[in-house]
Amino acid sequence: MIKIAERLSQVKPSVMMQVSMAARKLRADGVDVLDLGMGEPDFDTPRPIIDAAHAAALAGDTHYTPTQGTAALRQAVVRKFATENGLTYTPDQILIAAGAKQVIFDAMAATVEPGDEVIIPAPYWGTYLDIVLMFGGTPVPVACPAEDDFLLSPAALAAAITPQTRWLFLNSPSNPSGAMLDVAQMQALGQVLRDHPQVMVLSDEIYEHILYDGRRFTSFAAACPDLADRVLVVNGVSKAYAMTGWRIGYAAGPEALIKAMITVQSQATSGPSSVSQAAAVAALSGPQDVVETFRQAFQARRDLVVSRLAQVPGLTIAPPPGAFYAYVGCQALLGRRTAQGDVLTSDADVVQYLLTTGRVAVVPGAAFGLSPFFRISLASSTEVLTAACDRIQQAVAQLC
Amino acid sequence: MIKIAERLSQVKPSVMMQVSMAARKLRADGVDVLDLGMGEPDFDTPRPIIDAAHAAALAGDTHYTPTQGTAALRQAVVRKFATENGLTYTPDQILIAAGAKQVIFDAMAATVEPGDEVIIPAPYWGTYLDIVLMFGGTPVPVACPAEDDFLLSPAALAAAITPQTRWLFLNSPSNPSGAMLDVAQMQALGQVLRDHPQVMVLSDEIYEHILYDGRRFTSFAAACPDLADRVLVVNGVSKAYAMTGWRIGYAAGPEALIKAMITVQSQATSGPSSVSQAAAVAALSGPQDVVETFRQAFQARRDLVVSRLAQVPGLTIAPPPGAFYAYVGCQALLGRRTAQGDVLTSDADVVQYLLTTGRVAVVPGAAFGLSPFFRISLASSTEVLTAACDRIQQAVAQLC
Repeated sequence: MIKIAERLSQVKPSVMMQVSMAARKLRADGVDVLDLGMGEPDFDTPRPIIDAAHAAALAGDTHYTPTQGTAALRQAVVRKFATENGLTYTPDQILIAAGAKQVIFDAMAATVEPGDEVIIPAPYWGTYLDIVLMFGGTPVPVACPAEDDFLLSPAALAAAITPQTRWLFLNSPSNPSGAMLDVAQMQALGQVLRDHPQVMVLSDEIYEHILYDGRRFTSFAAACPDLADRVLVVNGVSKAYAMTGWRIGYAAGPEALIKAMITVQSQATSGPSSVSQAAAVAALSGPQDVVETFRQAFQARRDLVVSRLAQVPGLTIAPPPGAFYAYVGCQALLGRRTAQGDVLTSDADVVQYLLTTGRVAVVPGAAFGLSPFFRISLASSTEVLTAACDRIQQAVAQLC
Repeated sequence: MIKIAERLSQVKPSVMMQVSMAARKLRADGVDVLDLGMGEPDFDTPRPIIDAAHAAALAGDTHYTPTQGTAALRQAVVRKFATENGLTYTPDQILIAAGAKQVIFDAMAATVEPGDEVIIPAPYWGTYLDIVLMFGGTPVPVACPAEDDFLLSPAALAAAITPQTRWLFLNSPSNPSGAMLDVAQMQALGQVLRDHPQVMVLSDEIYEHILYDGRRFTSFAAACPDLADRVLVVNGVSKAYAMTGWRIGYAAGPEALIKAMITVQSQATSGPSSVSQAAAVAALSGPQDVVETFRQAFQARRDLVVSRLAQVPGLTIAPPPGAFYAYVGCQALLGRRTAQGDVLTSDADVVQYLLTTGRVAVVPGAAFGLSPFFRISLASSTEVLTAACDRIQQAVAQLC
């Protein structure tokens, strides 16, 4: 009786969700599984931000906001772009959404039609593909191998562009690889884009503040200022301030695009939570030392996991420049045999083996469009990560 | 350079927004305009709900929730349906969304394709049409005139159904008319639907608790229990608990539909704010006396506005059974002339006249698909409503 629309047939069940379900099922059966699948900081939101939200609600911020977001938050975002990124926007060029995910959804709903192509460097966050598919677009994944530090090369970009290309997605630092473009690399991509005025850039900069070894961040729009009117910068408070639950993302871009995205959002959800928006103002405008505290914690964990897994024969790992994941190569494990006699033929097999034998949940590279790898989240304590590395090492050692 | 997708060309700029912009512009020019355009309670969220949200955030509810909503909130919604509506659902049949609007968006995205028809009784909330249009569906408005108490008749429903009909929207009590179906009327509609198994019912029950003159509410799914597996019940905490800003709506329906809606929402926004969900648990599970307090305030305002405007020659008004609007007929004003010599030819003209001469902002019936009327929101104090009625009376009296 209930006919489901064709647009959903394109959206595959999330591999990440399947791993998470399998881990949860094992736990329910009493197995002590260490879950390194999560894509969010394990820290709670800092208390001053929570208290600011409470004060705003008590002061009456419990009513509808404009769909585009409150004036206060859009001003705070304008200031953030000016001071942190050297980018100049007006409040009319800013959209506040229920998470960076909604920003991307709004943008694709506003611009992508059947036949349109969207270039997505792999490994990628799977949601990029799903959203493009939902609106009838054609995702064009471009493999960015480990030899290239998981980075999109200008030659690969040039080869992927067609007259139907509408968007290039960039995500630097990247989920899942942590790969990060430097300014010269961004400018080299920008050089390619100059010949193709039909291509817009969606620059997902949500991991901006989680950088290692003293690296500094440059926004793509700042690296290629002459392309800024073709760039939609996507960001949010979730990762930097441990605010995933509040659902506040934001975008900056050309006003015509932002206007169309507001139209989409006005029909989908209206403005995000007024209370969450007040919390985001506090996060962006308050003391920023918490961001550095979180970053240092991630740096210690990243150093730990890289040094531990580099010693495991059969695994390859390079220190990720940013984000809070390690993308671990497992090519040398393929063809090897478990104690039960099963041959590992893919990273999905490796992940399944690590889950059942190692009792560690990680996400296979297949979920991110580049195999054979698995992604480990650094959003756990050093104790948990140490135990997880022990278990991975032991499980791998048992392979024949 | 930025090509906007065809799907947006169908979505018209909101008439409601235009009125609101015109009113804001007059205010910016120093004109003292009384705004009766708003569709949200003027009350702030009750303090216990705000404090519960704060406590939950301090306790760590600042992380991603499942897309479908937290177990606690879905349980609270299951209990609400059981105790208030006599409806039995499992938590798997419940979806929590960022407002009732997102529930409707999810449902249409999950089911509507080009060629599909959606029956929408007029007058209607304009967003219903826009969402259907966004997904390529064909809205089929069915006029429900004042003589029928703005209610959909079984005969009108039967005449509107075709093999392409996928959904019937019901909104009782209704925005904008306040019209309310009684159980016998719902069952008569249900009788028509039994012959058309391809038609699902979206029952928007967001005004459930705002009823006048001792009326009692029955959910459509309770009135027609044998149709319950074809009914998506839409509700939320916004109107009953003065929580519009928190953006929490919910749905109950057949699991296959809810599953498809979760897929849509997982790509659009994920779960709504964790803090807002905690607030909604407190609202649904805490003392309910605040709901009655708000209702009594609206009853007094509704009685005031009805009695005042009934005395204005040229206007017609019947006491609305529910919701917080009055839908005022202005047929007799058409053809009359302003002091400036302009002839009023539509309810949009009447609204423009009331704004510029009466300094009262209301919304024209054209925005709701049934003219000539205008909608007055009761979400203002009795002082403001009294002054607004004075101004309307004086402005109408000046027409020749």
